[in-house]
Amino acid sequence: MRIEVLRLGHRPVRDKRLTTHLFLAARALGASGGYYTGVRDEGIEKGVRNVCLNWGGSFAIGHTTKWKAVAQRCRESGSEIIHLTMYGTPIQLAIEKLRESPKDKLIIVGGEKVPKDLYQLSDWNLAVTSQPHSEVSALAILLHELHRGRELEKTFDGSRLVVIPQEHGKRVIRAKEA
Amino acid sequence: MRIEVLRLGHRPVRDKRLTTHLFLAARALGASGGYYTGVRDEGIEKGVRNVCLNWGGSFAIGHTTKWKAVAQRCRESGSEIIHLTMYGTPIQLAIEKLRESPKDKLIIVGGEKVPKDLYQLSDWNLAVTSQPHSEVSALAILLHELHRGRELEKTFDGSRLVVIPQEHGKRVIRAKEA
Repeated sequence: MRIEVLRLGHRPVRDKRLTTHLFLAARALGASGGYYTGVRDEGIEKGVRNVCLNWGGSFAIGHTTKWKAVAQRCRESGSEIIHLTMYGTPIQLAIEKLRESPKDKLIIVGGEKVPKDLYQLSDWNLAVTSQPHSEVSALAILLHELHRGRELEKTFDGSRLVVIPQEHGKRVIRAKEA
Repeated sequence: MRIEVLRLGHRPVRDKRLTTHLFLAARALGASGGYYTGVRDEGIEKGVRNVCLNWGGSFAIGHTTKWKAVAQRCRESGSEIIHLTMYGTPIQLAIEKLRESPKDKLIIVGGEKVPKDLYQLSDWNLAVTSQPHSEVSALAILLHELHRGRELEKTFDGSRLVVIPQEHGKRVIRAKEA
């Protein structure tokens, strides 16, 4: 199951770190790539690229001005469209169906203002609690649930750096020593 | 099990939204309150307070200049100290012990630079993957795992607003209509 993330309405100053964190969480937790709308921000693209260079894998993000075209293209190639929103169906009521469906997923997360037709266009409007929190935490829990926790074991090809987990302390080595 | 979150090294401009999202995620996913160090930022305190006013519950956050004193106090009152770090023990190896322990928890999440002695002082240094992503996603998955997903059903007393989950659309009512 291939999973992509579409982030709507990025604003460079206000959202810089949040959007970066969103894409890094997507990468670390098993999504394959992403798109964003709003203002193009080479800073976040570079930030994510640098993480891939150092830590491996090939998570590409692309800027687009047309979120509907992305959603349409994903749907035509067989993906389900999931919109994360606190107003949607509780994730725990839908997760089993989503896991069982072999379809790829496009997960859409909004910014401050979500286009109204997104609610209609999405196959699933899913809520990770009906409380306000963060697109980063909502995405993390959705990915974790979709993968049944197995994403925590994911490894990344071609990394320069590898963490050797420590009970107390910090150990990072160059990949060739691994 | 009472869970509190301590966020280190808040920087008002750069971290404003991230720290707010971190505390909102903590609240929504079943933590009881939080602390932060770094520069005091009334904006995030007010933001979290407003969410509690509208959406219920009583998640208080306090600024402190002394993270060690907070950790010490929590330990003396019987809490375990968990530091979330990509360099730590994979969460999936520790979670069962943490769930079984009846002790309260203090979860510490760092900023850009983490004090070295935090790794020693913590009972657990836990990694949600050994990859860089976000304190918000790492905290979300830890809370979700600690609560075995039951936090998704949590309700909040005294809210003004209540979401009525919709498959397609958005419905929020005043609490007295609920």
